[in-house]
Amino acid sequence: MIKQTLLENSVRKFMPKYFANVSDEQIEKIKNYIQAFTAHTFAGTPTGAVLTDATASEGKMIRPRLLMMASEYGPKRGDAQETLYKLAAIVEMTHLASLIHDDVVDDAPFRRGKPSIQSRYGKNAAVYAGDFLMSRISYHLMKEGLNRAGMVLSKTVEEMCSGEIGQAMCRYKDTVTIDEYLRNIHGKTVALFMACCRIGAMESGCSEQHAGILESFGECLGYMFQLRDDLLDFTDDKALNGKTVHQDFREGIYTLPVLIALERPGGRAALTPYMERSAAGTLTAADIRTMERIVAEFGGMEEAWKYIRRYQRRAEELLAFLPPCDAAPLLRKLVSKLGAV
Amino acid sequence: MIKQTLLENSVRKFMPKYFANVSDEQIEKIKNYIQAFTAHTFAGTPTGAVLTDATASEGKMIRPRLLMMASEYGPKRGDAQETLYKLAAIVEMTHLASLIHDDVVDDAPFRRGKPSIQSRYGKNAAVYAGDFLMSRISYHLMKEGLNRAGMVLSKTVEEMCSGEIGQAMCRYKDTVTIDEYLRNIHGKTVALFMACCRIGAMESGCSEQHAGILESFGECLGYMFQLRDDLLDFTDDKALNGKTVHQDFREGIYTLPVLIALERPGGRAALTPYMERSAAGTLTAADIRTMERIVAEFGGMEEAWKYIRRYQRRAEELLAFLPPCDAAPLLRKLVSKLGAV
Repeated sequence: MIKQTLLENSVRKFMPKYFANVSDEQIEKIKNYIQAFTAHTFAGTPTGAVLTDATASEGKMIRPRLLMMASEYGPKRGDAQETLYKLAAIVEMTHLASLIHDDVVDDAPFRRGKPSIQSRYGKNAAVYAGDFLMSRISYHLMKEGLNRAGMVLSKTVEEMCSGEIGQAMCRYKDTVTIDEYLRNIHGKTVALFMACCRIGAMESGCSEQHAGILESFGECLGYMFQLRDDLLDFTDDKALNGKTVHQDFREGIYTLPVLIALERPGGRAALTPYMERSAAGTLTAADIRTMERIVAEFGGMEEAWKYIRRYQRRAEELLAFLPPCDAAPLLRKLVSKLGAV
Repeated sequence: MIKQTLLENSVRKFMPKYFANVSDEQIEKIKNYIQAFTAHTFAGTPTGAVLTDATASEGKMIRPRLLMMASEYGPKRGDAQETLYKLAAIVEMTHLASLIHDDVVDDAPFRRGKPSIQSRYGKNAAVYAGDFLMSRISYHLMKEGLNRAGMVLSKTVEEMCSGEIGQAMCRYKDTVTIDEYLRNIHGKTVALFMACCRIGAMESGCSEQHAGILESFGECLGYMFQLRDDLLDFTDDKALNGKTVHQDFREGIYTLPVLIALERPGGRAALTPYMERSAAGTLTAADIRTMERIVAEFGGMEEAWKYIRRYQRRAEELLAFLPPCDAAPLLRKLVSKLGAV
């Protein structure tokens, strides 16, 4: 039951609804900046194709929306509108560049339900398409004199690298701790959510105190987002998101429910055979079902939800510290929705 | 005979000597900035190892030296010394980041005579180490407010991507033209030489006219450098640079001597079987020797030298347009040396 509801409530699907303060018109402007910033001279090359595909952006624009929502708290948001659109475009480009390079590393066959850039155009095109996007990001940040936001973003990219490396080093490692896992998703996902909130706040004239609170709010949101996304892998629907279910476990990425079960008395002994088979590449469909049952029996799913609710409470506390603004009611609803199964 | 002299005169070996206006002390300061700019938190990870290795920099620091030499033409070079060291560090970091990603793409087993980062630590570590260096470059450019230089550098990285992509698309393509080849090496190598000259000139207070002349001078130097480097592949010494001789041909990268021979009457017919075997991966050592003999017979080597001498003459003309300065005599000698077999 939990599974099915979770599936229907896929976070990527419902999240944009709660960012409704950002109008379609604003999203259009942001997309136009993405197009303008990434206009390129690689026509007819695989990298050109990669870039056209990547920036056609069928994504949900969650990060640009979050940046715009955070900017609602700033007294100077009106004057800063165009700057905010540009920065919203740039955080989305950062996200796209990171996806392209992650797929190179993962040799991922799919992305957003379609063949990944890497699998369609090869490693070569994907590496340089990512590099190209990164250099365009730098160029436009420097051209627009957006150094302060650019520095936040550069440090964020470092964290993103660090998280991906951490995750790669933890693969098939049966001694991974919950702390290590949380650190890795902090880099992979949470850091960019934080940057969106800080940049949106900073550029719209929030005080340093409010920018800090919004950054921490972004942290809670990022964790809830990634934890829910990882839980989604514990569902039955194979067509979901174009991913195979339990893809994480198959690839030796042990997420929170598994790590919780491992820490329970008897949990490690019960799960070890399946982790070994995962590493050996000999997992069967029956194994996956058994593993899932073991994780559930040892309370992995329930306990993972407690983590999500902890971030929910913290997010609610943080919002209470901020002055009222148009975005506040929707953000409160979003947090409540994210904390619900 | 030509081969042996060329070998002894490997451009990477002799080039730094002609940049002698840059003292060891200055190089030390530049290296210190590289260390400071790349200090990282990846200790104990493969990426940490990649970064430590890559920035230990046993390279010849040709690009930082060139930047410093160009800055000799600027009236404000004295005031700008620290800025110039920082930018010299940053162009070397840009070069290192590009080498790391090139090796990912090439699956290159060696770099500078040692196993490549990619072959030692895996694709994963190499992709993120390159990304990390790129984000550190952006961070420090923005922190120091070096936006103008940073914009030149970002555009250069684009060109570098474009050159690598171009080269990849031309692999094993027997219809590659000399123009395409020159465009590819422009991106791969020449663009960064140009950026070094422009940035050194700009930041030391050269006029736009002089900065433009120095940039064009860097272009000539870059072409001479890469053309000589490609000719080096036409030598007998297998231990050279840690590369196998005729590695380019084996990998389907047809360089200037081959392309010249292909354009001569009868050249294409003579070389086609070897290009086909190269694509099929069935080239023998005897094939390589025959290919080399054919290229020589059709005048590929001699004609390639004519290209080098054309860039030499242009470089000399450009230097004549510039005011006298301490760097000028050495740069003139360098150009003359680069034009000599």
